Amino acid sequence: MTTTPSATPFANPTIDTLLAHRSIRRFADAPVPDEHVRLAVAAGQQASTSSNVQAYSILRVREAATRERLVELTGGQTKVARCGAFFMVSGDTRRHRLLAARAGVPHRTRLEGFLVAAIDASLFAQNLCVAFESLGYGICYIGGLRNDLPGVRALLNVPHGVYPLFGLCVGVPDETPTPRPRLAPDAVLHEDRFPEDEAILADADAYDERMRAWYAERGLETTWSQRIEKQFSEAHRTEVARFYAEQGAELD
Amino acid sequence: MTTTPSATPFANPTIDTLLAHRSIRRFADAPVPDEHVRLAVAAGQQASTSSNVQAYSILRVREAATRERLVELTGGQTKVARCGAFFMVSGDTRRHRLLAARAGVPHRTRLEGFLVAAIDASLFAQNLCVAFESLGYGICYIGGLRNDLPGVRALLNVPHGVYPLFGLCVGVPDETPTPRPRLAPDAVLHEDRFPEDEAILADADAYDERMRAWYAERGLETTWSQRIEKQFSEAHRTEVARFYAEQGAELD
Repeated sequence: MTTTPSATPFANPTIDTLLAHRSIRRFADAPVPDEHVRLAVAAGQQASTSSNVQAYSILRVREAATRERLVELTGGQTKVARCGAFFMVSGDTRRHRLLAARAGVPHRTRLEGFLVAAIDASLFAQNLCVAFESLGYGICYIGGLRNDLPGVRALLNVPHGVYPLFGLCVGVPDETPTPRPRLAPDAVLHEDRFPEDEAILADADAYDERMRAWYAERGLETTWSQRIEKQFSEAHRTEVARFYAEQGAELD
Repeated sequence: MTTTPSATPFANPTIDTLLAHRSIRRFADAPVPDEHVRLAVAAGQQASTSSNVQAYSILRVREAATRERLVELTGGQTKVARCGAFFMVSGDTRRHRLLAARAGVPHRTRLEGFLVAAIDASLFAQNLCVAFESLGYGICYIGGLRNDLPGVRALLNVPHGVYPLFGLCVGVPDETPTPRPRLAPDAVLHEDRFPEDEAILADADAYDERMRAWYAERGLETTWSQRIEKQFSEAHRTEVARFYAEQGAELD
């Protein structure tokens, strides 16, 4: 356990672990033993899953050359090669498809089925990450896996019915960043009705004020709002829909 | 803490909490205090979020009449009205859209942006659930929220840019089910390459054997494979893509 006694009333070691999360981007050259991986995967699997379909899988990538290639495919993220263990998390309907084929019944994945797989995989992955963090490891989600999904498919021979969603770096932290502040809880928790536009923008402005110092400490002259405005003004990973369709999902 | 000392080597209170999860469908008539909700939301928010976009929101529904209507909309799930606290979790790009409009810059949500929102919301929700469970509450995800999304939108005045994903029942458990067994960890964890079709099916067969007794105890003469074959052979919630498109996501 790496957590410290909590200053929050009602808290406990689990909540301390959750509140202590910060993504780790620099890892020590230290392994992640198989028994830790299996325990974290088992803890991940116990997460809720829609009608128990368990529509996900996780691929551990060990081969050094493969991980070096994944550094390129994810936009030069060297931590993909240097972390103690690298994983690819996928929504996975392949088992369901194979069962349907063997039984001679039809099988289709529409947006609903794709969404079930993406949500199932995410709930699994978050439990997995919490388990690793409770064991003292650091983690980082790698959304950059979606930068070049056809490249990932070719490299890892991703079968039909498998939808790679993100990578996960796990390892012993070699840095001690402070957790990044989030929007105020009241900005994301609404009561009985959604707030007016003005309230939504006021929360963003308040968050900008709180985040100003955080960015400044990192040499960045920016605000959260400015970054959000830029992030979504440009088309980003526009090919993912075509890729998932090729993998078997009918998203219309 | 409701967890008991673990029999698993390396485990700790957090992993015990994760492994002890089972969905709760019967709740005691007991409240969930605001301070617990706020703590769980804060713990949820500390989950990873893609480029810190925090593309989610959570609506707590308190009004009794609204919750009774949600029972109907989710397919007659009375627990939606009877649990201590009911929430709707949404992918939410509304804040980003409002910021873009104020700044006079374009904003588009393609499948990538929708997926970021769905994954962000799921990571948040899973942390939230783990926090609640560590406090002694039981939880149940309500995928039935997607049965009639236009009905949900009308009832809760869901704004443009908000994508309701699932409900969450939280409360004091009034039943003590045992955790439902999952596929073997080796069935979902692969090493360096995806297994052959035969191995995937063999894992399903082994799981069917393990689950036979579990279903029999509940008076069900079925297997996991049979349920999966049936589940995906019928078109299911075919309208969700159109609904999310109406909310602002371009999914093609």
